[in-house]
Amino acid sequence: MNGAKSLVKTLLAAGVDTCFANPGTSEMHFVAALDQVEGMKCVLGLQENVVTGMADGYYRIAGKPACTLLHCAPGLANGMANLHNARRAGSGIVNIVGDQATYHRPYDAPLTADTSGMAQTVSAWVRTSATAAELGRDAVDAVHAATTFPGQVATLILPADVSWGEGAVVGQPTPAARPPAVDGHAIETAARILRSKSPVLLLLAGAAVSGQAQQLAWRIARASGASLMASYVNAKVARGRGRLQLERVPYAMAPAMQALAKFKHIVLVNAEAPVGFFGYPDMPSIQYNRAAQLHVLSRPDQDPLEALQALVEALGAPHAAIPDPGPRPEAARGAPTPEGLAQTVAALMPENAIISDESISYGRGFYQFTHAAPAHDWLHLTGGAIGDGMPVATGAALAAAKQRRVINLQADGSAMYSLQSLWTQAREQLPVTTVILNNSRYNILIGEYGSVGATPGPTAMSMLDLGQPQLDWLKLANGMGVDAARASTMEQCADLLKSSFGQTTPFLIELMI
Amino acid sequence: MNGAKSLVKTLLAAGVDTCFANPGTSEMHFVAALDQVEGMKCVLGLQENVVTGMADGYYRIAGKPACTLLHCAPGLANGMANLHNARRAGSGIVNIVGDQATYHRPYDAPLTADTSGMAQTVSAWVRTSATAAELGRDAVDAVHAATTFPGQVATLILPADVSWGEGAVVGQPTPAARPPAVDGHAIETAARILRSKSPVLLLLAGAAVSGQAQQLAWRIARASGASLMASYVNAKVARGRGRLQLERVPYAMAPAMQALAKFKHIVLVNAEAPVGFFGYPDMPSIQYNRAAQLHVLSRPDQDPLEALQALVEALGAPHAAIPDPGPRPEAARGAPTPEGLAQTVAALMPENAIISDESISYGRGFYQFTHAAPAHDWLHLTGGAIGDGMPVATGAALAAAKQRRVINLQADGSAMYSLQSLWTQAREQLPVTTVILNNSRYNILIGEYGSVGATPGPTAMSMLDLGQPQLDWLKLANGMGVDAARASTMEQCADLLKSSFGQTTPFLIELMI
Repeated sequence: MNGAKSLVKTLLAAGVDTCFANPGTSEMHFVAALDQVEGMKCVLGLQENVVTGMADGYYRIAGKPACTLLHCAPGLANGMANLHNARRAGSGIVNIVGDQATYHRPYDAPLTADTSGMAQTVSAWVRTSATAAELGRDAVDAVHAATTFPGQVATLILPADVSWGEGAVVGQPTPAARPPAVDGHAIETAARILRSKSPVLLLLAGAAVSGQAQQLAWRIARASGASLMASYVNAKVARGRGRLQLERVPYAMAPAMQALAKFKHIVLVNAEAPVGFFGYPDMPSIQYNRAAQLHVLSRPDQDPLEALQALVEALGAPHAAIPDPGPRPEAARGAPTPEGLAQTVAALMPENAIISDESISYGRGFYQFTHAAPAHDWLHLTGGAIGDGMPVATGAALAAAKQRRVINLQADGSAMYSLQSLWTQAREQLPVTTVILNNSRYNILIGEYGSVGATPGPTAMSMLDLGQPQLDWLKLANGMGVDAARASTMEQCADLLKSSFGQTTPFLIELMI
Repeated sequence: MNGAKSLVKTLLAAGVDTCFANPGTSEMHFVAALDQVEGMKCVLGLQENVVTGMADGYYRIAGKPACTLLHCAPGLANGMANLHNARRAGSGIVNIVGDQATYHRPYDAPLTADTSGMAQTVSAWVRTSATAAELGRDAVDAVHAATTFPGQVATLILPADVSWGEGAVVGQPTPAARPPAVDGHAIETAARILRSKSPVLLLLAGAAVSGQAQQLAWRIARASGASLMASYVNAKVARGRGRLQLERVPYAMAPAMQALAKFKHIVLVNAEAPVGFFGYPDMPSIQYNRAAQLHVLSRPDQDPLEALQALVEALGAPHAAIPDPGPRPEAARGAPTPEGLAQTVAALMPENAIISDESISYGRGFYQFTHAAPAHDWLHLTGGAIGDGMPVATGAALAAAKQRRVINLQADGSAMYSLQSLWTQAREQLPVTTVILNNSRYNILIGEYGSVGATPGPTAMSMLDLGQPQLDWLKLANGMGVDAARASTMEQCADLLKSSFGQTTPFLIELMI
């Protein structure tokens, strides 16, 4: 058996049955093995950042890793921005990068570059497989690393001769490692603080914003009077009816500092200490009160359910029903506004929908108008590397086996980063509704320019304005096989959303905002 | 003065007057400085691989570096594939990457990543500027590194607080370093070999395929009986009437080995020893005769004109006119073929055109049918990282101040990697004619799959076929503001080429091949 076949068989044995791919010459034996061994669903992306972003979205919904197939160092480079986002999301990905044959690498042929050096910058685990005989074991280790809680990017570099070499052996999958146990002292400390009745914030992130974790957190909050908040970015937030009306720490420094100012204690549940996305002149880096005390209840690599359950018990916190969010909003009318769009999506979305949110500045307030929507999952841009909304939506739709509607709320500037995703949505006939928020500019940056103390002049606007020429998203979508229509009012937008939710195929709405 | 202003002023003083940009929040002070200091032409690309590819194309035609403006590590990652190609092209780029403020970096905010580690993989020179006071000097050093012969990628990482910090000083430009002198022994050895009358190949690459170098190489060939050939990839080849009918070492192993088999000596003029793009089972890595002797006349970092002139003198090689290539071809008729397209382009291209060639497998034989075209420059994909053809064409058009027609011969699969280039072409109203070679598949890979010993099955084809759904390049181009039309015959293609050559604006031809 050659290495490539052992790799495919090992991956399948370990439960990795989906491959997001953009192969090249050095991967042809792996492609042939995928032909010869049945069971791997292969999905083509027309640029690697689409491939890696799909793998990220897949993990967030499937809860198990897919593998990728990338071509040499430059192919990896193209996919690194969304691997960065996946790293920040805690998404498990078996990231397979084909490369020059080991003996050919020293000749420094044109495509040769520092594949391993690149991979180190975005991966928790990197290995270059050395021989076909070891590849099965390497694949087992890669899956093990990818499934290490909460999920990691594991890059397996696959030289062409390791792929075609004979004498390979299928690896025996090992069970995923259990997360490190939570610390008893941390539980005790948190319980003591929560009993103190001083202003305490329980800050939830990562796996601690799941529906189950929210139930436990709510019991703790009810019993102790503590406040609950979520970090600004999270891979997946359980939201809507039956879930908490959880708000996020705001993005901008001033409102974030205002929201956090009153807390003397912040208990971090799989969350990092809240800091600014960027440093600004004469502003602190941290968003919380400098006098506040931070306590780590559970780290991102620990199980928040275990920690929250222990805390519930330490406090003797009784069962408590999640509060009712009130009536479902009605679809908005008139000119598009952020509130109106959020209300309309909340009014119309089907049960168990998935939101892929790369709305950037337009969408910072979407949460408050969507609490009373049906239960849904909300996926965020976790690493700030724009261009993840469309591929994450695509991968999420595949992970849900096309059984859940995906709604991609998508800023136009960011959409241009990975618009090739639409083609994969058409090819796989995925139930994704994309709402392009067309303001024809990098609006977040025009806002940030203001903090420099002026309005952008013509040179600055030549780098911030997208309106010359206007992008026509109907043509772009149609050019890749996706039906599309334009909306200038919320009524039009509502009609298009409704009709797309009744279909099983992708649809794009260009909302002129 | 703040750091950002000192940076802009230093760049302008050093002759760097074009900035290819896709900025973010951490670059706003730099953007503001570009507003405040006049003289920098700023060109927006809607994805960073377009930005870096434009900078590569610009250098190849302008012969001096532009700067880029990228946003943090993920923005750099998005542009790394074309920085890899630029590195292989020997293109000088002052690659400016904004980043977290120095004091904010330890907080590991979402966009934070190993910027320097990423930069090392594609740059000859990397520095993270530490203070505003040092930024002017750092910029001088970056330009110096970028202009080191034949040109290098110099990455200057610019933390936000270095940009906004006061106390900055404009740097004093230093003259570009002279290339290291050629070695007298190398000249003597080459002269001795050329006099020996054994089969000798003078292999030219990089700066040694310029028009002037070709004149000298031809005198040497005439005087000695040596053969002349160019490497498979070159940043810019002077071609057409008045230039040599130079052929390249073929891409595929078998014809390359056949072409090189007879040479007992290979004299490398700024060329690397010819090796395969990839290793293949039971094939050697090198393409030349294992018994051949290789001699380095000049390294890629040395001046080939100096080396060839010295060799001309050592041989006493008389002046010799470049041979006439025969009559200009006529435009082809009927169904599209590679030969027909090459002949048609040769028949119709205006004087002094620029070809940006990312035709991949379709274009391997274009050279032999275009020798008798008017004088032109031919730009190749140098690093094998697909997605450079469109951005290189865009940057080349800007470097030529819109005075030369650029013809981008572009494979469809590769085009999808950086199609956002078309928007910049429309925005800047650039004279670029793009010919999309639409075969709706990764044809090179279907060929390579054959070497695995079979025809692709359905799983393999799900990763190699682009026809489901069909990409509609007219809609894609129109969606970004570029006029376009489809051609299914060479007559239609010729008509569209002719009419586009009469315009000053971009145009796209989708050629169904």
